[in-house]
Amino acid sequence: MAEPSGILIKGGKVVNEDCSVISDVYIENGKIVEVGLNLQIPGGVRVIDATGKLVIPGGIDTHTHMELEFMGTKAVDDFYIGTKAALAGGTTMIMDFVIPQRGKSLLEAYDCWRQTADPKVCCDYSLHVAVTWWSDQVKKEMQTVTKEKGVNSFKMFMAYKDVFMLDDSELYAAFSQCKEIGAIAQVHAENGDLIAEGAKKMLSLGITGPEGHELCRPEEVEAEATQRAITIAHAVNCPLYVVHVMSKSAAKVVSNARREGRVVFGEPIAAGLGTDGTHCWHKDWGHAAGFVMGPPLRPDPSTPGYLMDLLANDDLTVTGTDNCTFSVCQKALGKDDFTKIPNGVNGVEDRMSVIWEKGVHSGKMDENRFVAVTSSNAAKIFNFYPQKGRIAKNSDADVVIWDPKMKRIKQRDQVGTPTAVIREPYKGEVISL
Amino acid sequence: MAEPSGILIKGGKVVNEDCSVISDVYIENGKIVEVGLNLQIPGGVRVIDATGKLVIPGGIDTHTHMELEFMGTKAVDDFYIGTKAALAGGTTMIMDFVIPQRGKSLLEAYDCWRQTADPKVCCDYSLHVAVTWWSDQVKKEMQTVTKEKGVNSFKMFMAYKDVFMLDDSELYAAFSQCKEIGAIAQVHAENGDLIAEGAKKMLSLGITGPEGHELCRPEEVEAEATQRAITIAHAVNCPLYVVHVMSKSAAKVVSNARREGRVVFGEPIAAGLGTDGTHCWHKDWGHAAGFVMGPPLRPDPSTPGYLMDLLANDDLTVTGTDNCTFSVCQKALGKDDFTKIPNGVNGVEDRMSVIWEKGVHSGKMDENRFVAVTSSNAAKIFNFYPQKGRIAKNSDADVVIWDPKMKRIKQRDQVGTPTAVIREPYKGEVISL
Amino acid sequence: MAEPSGILIKGGKVVNEDCSVISDVYIENGKIVEVGLNLQIPGGVRVIDATGKLVIPGGIDTHTHMELEFMGTKAVDDFYIGTKAALAGGTTMIMDFVIPQRGKSLLEAYDCWRQTADPKVCCDYSLHVAVTWWSDQVKKEMQTVTKEKGVNSFKMFMAYKDVFMLDDSELYAAFSQCKEIGAIAQVHAENGDLIAEGAKKMLSLGITGPEGHELCRPEEVEAEATQRAITIAHAVNCPLYVVHVMSKSAAKVVSNARREGRVVFGEPIAAGLGTDGTHCWHKDWGHAAGFVMGPPLRPDPSTPGYLMDLLANDDLTVTGTDNCTFSVCQKALGKDDFTKIPNGVNGVEDRMSVIWEKGVHSGKMDENRFVAVTSSNAAKIFNFYPQKGRIAKNSDADVVIWDPKMKRIKQRDQVGTPTAVIREPYKGEVISL
Amino acid sequence: MAEPSGILIKGGKVVNEDCSVISDVYIENGKIVEVGLNLQIPGGVRVIDATGKLVIPGGIDTHTHMELEFMGTKAVDDFYIGTKAALAGGTTMIMDFVIPQRGKSLLEAYDCWRQTADPKVCCDYSLHVAVTWWSDQVKKEMQTVTKEKGVNSFKMFMAYKDVFMLDDSELYAAFSQCKEIGAIAQVHAENGDLIAEGAKKMLSLGITGPEGHELCRPEEVEAEATQRAITIAHAVNCPLYVVHVMSKSAAKVVSNARREGRVVFGEPIAAGLGTDGTHCWHKDWGHAAGFVMGPPLRPDPSTPGYLMDLLANDDLTVTGTDNCTFSVCQKALGKDDFTKIPNGVNGVEDRMSVIWEKGVHSGKMDENRFVAVTSSNAAKIFNFYPQKGRIAKNSDADVVIWDPKMKRIKQRDQVGTPTAVIREPYKGEVISL
Repeated sequence: MAEPSGILIKGGKVVNEDCSVISDVYIENGKIVEVGLNLQIPGGVRVIDATGKLVIPGGIDTHTHMELEFMGTKAVDDFYIGTKAALAGGTTMIMDFVIPQRGKSLLEAYDCWRQTADPKVCCDYSLHVAVTWWSDQVKKEMQTVTKEKGVNSFKMFMAYKDVFMLDDSELYAAFSQCKEIGAIAQVHAENGDLIAEGAKKMLSLGITGPEGHELCRPEEVEAEATQRAITIAHAVNCPLYVVHVMSKSAAKVVSNARREGRVVFGEPIAAGLGTDGTHCWHKDWGHAAGFVMGPPLRPDPSTPGYLMDLLANDDLTVTGTDNCTFSVCQKALGKDDFTKIPNGVNGVEDRMSVIWEKGVHSGKMDENRFVAVTSSNAAKIFNFYPQKGRIAKNSDADVVIWDPKMKRIKQRDQVGTPTAVIREPYKGEVISL
Repeated sequence: MAEPSGILIKGGKVVNEDCSVISDVYIENGKIVEVGLNLQIPGGVRVIDATGKLVIPGGIDTHTHMELEFMGTKAVDDFYIGTKAALAGGTTMIMDFVIPQRGKSLLEAYDCWRQTADPKVCCDYSLHVAVTWWSDQVKKEMQTVTKEKGVNSFKMFMAYKDVFMLDDSELYAAFSQCKEIGAIAQVHAENGDLIAEGAKKMLSLGITGPEGHELCRPEEVEAEATQRAITIAHAVNCPLYVVHVMSKSAAKVVSNARREGRVVFGEPIAAGLGTDGTHCWHKDWGHAAGFVMGPPLRPDPSTPGYLMDLLANDDLTVTGTDNCTFSVCQKALGKDDFTKIPNGVNGVEDRMSVIWEKGVHSGKMDENRFVAVTSSNAAKIFNFYPQKGRIAKNSDADVVIWDPKMKRIKQRDQVGTPTAVIREPYKGEVISL
Repeated sequence: MAEPSGILIKGGKVVNEDCSVISDVYIENGKIVEVGLNLQIPGGVRVIDATGKLVIPGGIDTHTHMELEFMGTKAVDDFYIGTKAALAGGTTMIMDFVIPQRGKSLLEAYDCWRQTADPKVCCDYSLHVAVTWWSDQVKKEMQTVTKEKGVNSFKMFMAYKDVFMLDDSELYAAFSQCKEIGAIAQVHAENGDLIAEGAKKMLSLGITGPEGHELCRPEEVEAEATQRAITIAHAVNCPLYVVHVMSKSAAKVVSNARREGRVVFGEPIAAGLGTDGTHCWHKDWGHAAGFVMGPPLRPDPSTPGYLMDLLANDDLTVTGTDNCTFSVCQKALGKDDFTKIPNGVNGVEDRMSVIWEKGVHSGKMDENRFVAVTSSNAAKIFNFYPQKGRIAKNSDADVVIWDPKMKRIKQRDQVGTPTAVIREPYKGEVISL
Repeated sequence: MAEPSGILIKGGKVVNEDCSVISDVYIENGKIVEVGLNLQIPGGVRVIDATGKLVIPGGIDTHTHMELEFMGTKAVDDFYIGTKAALAGGTTMIMDFVIPQRGKSLLEAYDCWRQTADPKVCCDYSLHVAVTWWSDQVKKEMQTVTKEKGVNSFKMFMAYKDVFMLDDSELYAAFSQCKEIGAIAQVHAENGDLIAEGAKKMLSLGITGPEGHELCRPEEVEAEATQRAITIAHAVNCPLYVVHVMSKSAAKVVSNARREGRVVFGEPIAAGLGTDGTHCWHKDWGHAAGFVMGPPLRPDPSTPGYLMDLLANDDLTVTGTDNCTFSVCQKALGKDDFTKIPNGVNGVEDRMSVIWEKGVHSGKMDENRFVAVTSSNAAKIFNFYPQKGRIAKNSDADVVIWDPKMKRIKQRDQVGTPTAVIREPYKGEVISL
């Protein structure tokens, strides 16, 4: 993504997580060469006027599933369209997940994901690896992908019984290995047994629509698993990262644990910050199904505001999207049975502006915290700060010029994905080199 | 246990859970015939002067394990000595547990317990039944013992992996059946997987002494399981009873759940209210081992006071003892490996006076709340109130004359059980007819 | 209120706070003579068939202000109509407040209230006494009204600056005296300084309507004062009773304090349990003004449900109404300035059925807890249990026959009071003798 | 404090709040000119080898009272010795307080403090201004010292009744003015009325020793005032800074408020993080009195650890010392009456190493959080970041070379101040230019 000659961004307000300052930024060969005023710049460089705008580190989306094969179909956003959408929204790096099938090699799955993604991506990306079963081989391969591929985060599922779910002993083993090899453990925290029983009960009651999805896994199912994951991680002294914190209850569990000194990070997602689960009761089945994901968006309408409060206060730390989009036709696989609706919503394009609007514009956080939760904190947790996540000399030139006065304009309707969250690109300028 | 002629208890202060009043109590044939002043009494009855003393409903110990075969040995208090001890301490009814082995019939186990206990007991008793495995047969037998034997409480273990432990699906099924047949679900709430892993780790670190027992199952292991049990019970809308709440963390979980409207009852025990787990670090192995039980007495010395506060405030509801005593010789089965120390402490004789001293004498609760937590609440939960648990016309004559000015005197040293909790009988008078 | 010959209530379910039992109740001369089945009854008594109905202790409304002179006018419910309304709703005793003006004698005010009320009341009543200023005389008179008039509860205001409000030193002194003379301290808990400033600010912003009343005293103004009152009461070791707990925040403060062992009782009121403050934003000024009281009904619509949860769980203890009704004409004194709207709502007639419907019918509490929070707990706190608050031999014959299948029918529209809370009488039968 | 020629710090690990990196730092004329590796440096500069050491931003002590006249005497650390001690401990800037007497001009007091401090200080310093009474003049002068002197923080006392204490109306007015002029409001949060009453009670009970100081103002007195200050600040929408958070209760109040979105910062101090109030029960009066300060160090021994946990988790934000030292002779003014013991402890020299040892060495925080809580956060709140609080190009050369392997050595015993907190200087190197 290099560009031969330099770029000078002039007159903008450079916003990092710790402070903001009016400053020029000079870029060469994909690196930030200098930040300051009155810089000595060679002639002939491209000059971008950023007066009145913010110059921020490119967003990092910690959680996407591009072209994931899942529930009998494949996510419609592939690595090309997905990363293009990311850039359109001000995100210059995504973190996707390698998800091996049970019994399959982590390494082979990793290679497979690389082969799929490498030719298509339009922005930087990295890969978490899921641990969907347990054996000595898995344990060894965790070390191998860490040492040889630079993976430093592994995701374990407490849901999706008989598919991806690990039991408590396996979680203990996987967390122990994370601790051993210096990786961070990630969890999808929902009680898979309760979901399975709940789903049976709903179907037996004749509830087959999208609303059944949430009814069979209310928020205490998420909160319980979150508490359990924290307990297990603490037993082996391993840092923990809870992906897609979707409910007030689960967020409180994370928040309380942090107060007791647990090293745990909570990741709300764009959909959960931007909207709520009442949509799943919508009369239009397609509309309702578009909002089905796991853990579900919650029907309590105070949820998004609450999650944003905690994100502002550092009880929650980073933001992803769980971008895993399915068309209405794909969603319709579950038209007679909500357990067959492919789980997933969009957000990779929308995350930055949702947080800006509901977090910054609302007065809950300032521009510096905005940068922290959309970029810097992710870079720190996953160990590529300050290469990314900061506008500074020697950092990667993942730079976004953010115009806080612009409105977003709808652009990507042709993609045909369900617009669970409003889906319009940020209209500032993205420089990701 | 009837007595031919009447008994008149004169001049005492009759203490029920709702109020106290100076009143006489007249008893005939094991029933309270009248409560009041200036009663019309036939001649020739035995008269007991209770002036200056309290006349209270006999204590109900909700949790004992007399002569239980457990961990390769058998509890030393049998149903004779155990119930005699109960009476010596002011307890006139115990509730013991039928614990079938995995794969065995609940009904047969129930009959077996009855045959053991019936000839020996000196006071009233009833039986909870444990569900230690799951099958359609178990499900059916739960209904049978309820309908035919009057059992209305079933206990499930979340600990003792590979012995008694049920997994979440089985808990869900067992709780559902409780709900169906109108019984209350009881749980031993500790995460058995974490205990198993923790024990391995401690032993691998060379920690083999009694202190390892607590170190491998710190209080969050109890709190986690408590939260999980409450979540599962709520999913099937079944009332829940958490036996032996031993830690501040677990008590808080119960307390928070009650505040959210969950129907959950917490049972602290005499040992947990009277002492703490620092004893397990005692230099004298025999002393330390005497305090080993599961869940463990906690090393945090503020635990007993905290549990008593919550008992006073109705965050915790009833009190038992988990009386399951082993001699030092028996405890010595685990002299090289704490996982083999038979778990259990005493308390059936001590419960009432421990609560009086640390609860009432300390000013945390009044005499009415004392009656509630030692007797009336248990009678209500297990559905024999006001037959028991209240001094009132037509109630059973389970009456204790409690002298708040007396000191307890050591009496039962000959039993040879570890005196984990101070073990002296109440010196008032017990009338259990 | 005696009746010459006896009354036999046959076949009902006698519901006390601890249990329910099918039983007959025989009454003579205003006293319950016997409770039981197959009673020996003299001939010629009046027999009431209560089959299929509940026989409960008459309700006790802990908080009314009949014909109170306040804010330049006088409450429209006088002691006659107010107590008649009470009876119509199943309440057989009210507790009103003597409120002396600043600088005036407590004793004289007490006598004045007695003279007003005695000739008019249709049901039992008693009087709390407010301490609206502080001096040695007040201190002495507190003792006198306790010893000579049997008053055992004094109310202090933290709001109504320059009218009734005491500062922290005065609260300390008043609470100390309560402790000394064995009375319970009651507080109206709102920060009067903040209300005064808030009101000024609202008016300066041009907000003059009823909604300004809540806007100038949001719930943290109530929660702050509640916390402060608890702190001061604890400093002098005096039991505390918080009248009209109106917000989730304040209720949480009470609840947390109880968990820490503070002796504090919270009293939600019928209006707060039955409705919320969104009415104050109603377009019809008269409608909105009808809901103005202090502390205000809260605009958060989850408030009533939350308060009922805590009432069910014993975090809150008793229920009153703050019945202090003003006609629309009286309310109109504040038509141009919300600070002049006479504060007050109705409820004395509605309390029992509001709690039945939203508490019992909703499944949050059972019939026994219903009796506790509408009657028995009040009787205990104010020291006339079991004379009142219990259906038992020798208790006062304050008996209500409650038909849980009846619907309430509107009856008292002619009174002309604002119907802030639905106002229809219970259609069962009240026996208050 | 400029130095003519440059300084090169080579080979150290530069630690800022966001990350650490091995880097050289080049300084000229009191400014950091460059940070990086392989810097182009002119010849002849002084070179300091920092290999194996940390290069951190100089500490900022947010709370000192050098040579304060207080309680009839004057603090023994003057601006010379106090700032020298600061530097010895790695603190390169202190923030002291102008405290005008009631009725006196803020401006005159400010000038007076400047005249006292300017000739003596050895390190950078700035001044908060206390508002100890209220009038239109005070209101105007708040604006003047802000505009003309650059003061942006005002401290209000809720304690010291009749001396410095403001009532709630005055707090409301002062906070409003802070909001208006863009300053941050600081509070000493204790309920002065309760302290006054408590002190009277203790003395009347014959408790005259240093332990009476805490007994008369237990932690709920602090928690109550903290809650009240937050409520008032929120009413006027003003950011709040709670100086010397000394108790778990008060820290919880701050923490809960932050979770609800309140802009409030809590400042624990070195003494509170390093030790506890059990010392006040010491048999040696001089020892005990040395630990008397307000709010008191708490007798609960878990307090320091708890405060450090919250400091690590960002529930508490910055650290000061309240350094206000009195010799034993001065403390002896209160030998017969604890209310006359001059309040104050040391800490300005010790703060950095106390936090390093109990915060970083214990594993509660990393080196980056250490920099945040000892320096960067203060610089941000009081608006001189990144001029101070960061090692970066163009920042002030307030640089400390911190050797994490060194032990502190006692140095300043000659000062004769009570060594309430261990008092030894950090033995690394301080560069404050």
